Amino acid sequence: MTETNFQCGLEAVIAILGGKWKPLIVYHLASGPQRTGQLRRLVTSVSEKMLIQHLRELTDDGIIRRIDFQTVPPHVEYELTEFGQSLTKVLAPMCDWGTRHTAEVAIIVQNRTRASEAA
Amino acid sequence: MTETNFQCGLEAVIAILGGKWKPLIVYHLASGPQRTGQLRRLVTSVSEKMLIQHLRELTDDGIIRRIDFQTVPPHVEYELTEFGQSLTKVLAPMCDWGTRHTAEVAIIVQNRTRASEAA
Repeated sequence: MTETNFQCGLEAVIAILGGKWKPLIVYHLASGPQRTGQLRRLVTSVSEKMLIQHLRELTDDGIIRRIDFQTVPPHVEYELTEFGQSLTKVLAPMCDWGTRHTAEVAIIVQNRTRASEAA
Repeated sequence: MTETNFQCGLEAVIAILGGKWKPLIVYHLASGPQRTGQLRRLVTSVSEKMLIQHLRELTDDGIIRRIDFQTVPPHVEYELTEFGQSLTKVLAPMCDWGTRHTAEVAIIVQNRTRASEAA
């Protein structure tokens, strides 16, 4: 296995947050625990199946923790572990960059849509 | 199209760098222009096909620039645009986090491999 020989720190982050919606899930948990349904509403474009898969992987990786309140009907919440909390330092500059360049990125995404429609 | 209504800056970054190898490509171009073959060697796990696709998308999005030296045999290099350069500020904290947590992430990846082998 050469998979764990990271060339640079970036590869380790990608190994953890590589799933498309994982950064957003961690971001939305940075403000406190959330129920699955709340996360579904916050991460608007994710499918139920993909959200569940990402939550399971993040839990297995020790980034988030699943809290089952053992009630009927079931009440389950997710929260960041201490390790997961450390990732918010990575996400903050991403949010900053994105907020500063929202207009440019919106144009880029529009151009992509136009190009794929023309193809 | 609601695709361009980003809820937070993070979504704009994911729209640009969402491809699995894109952060690594931008990272390796941060130190200067590179030929395709050099990038292939630097981003070790990427397939030729995927690398070409990512380079095309990053070029279309204005993150990198393709320089064709018009020689025979062909000599093509890629470099970051000014817009692409701005992304290095996002990548630096990712590298830092990853470098600090390499050992933990290596264990996580090993556990995943073990879990998938046991399944």
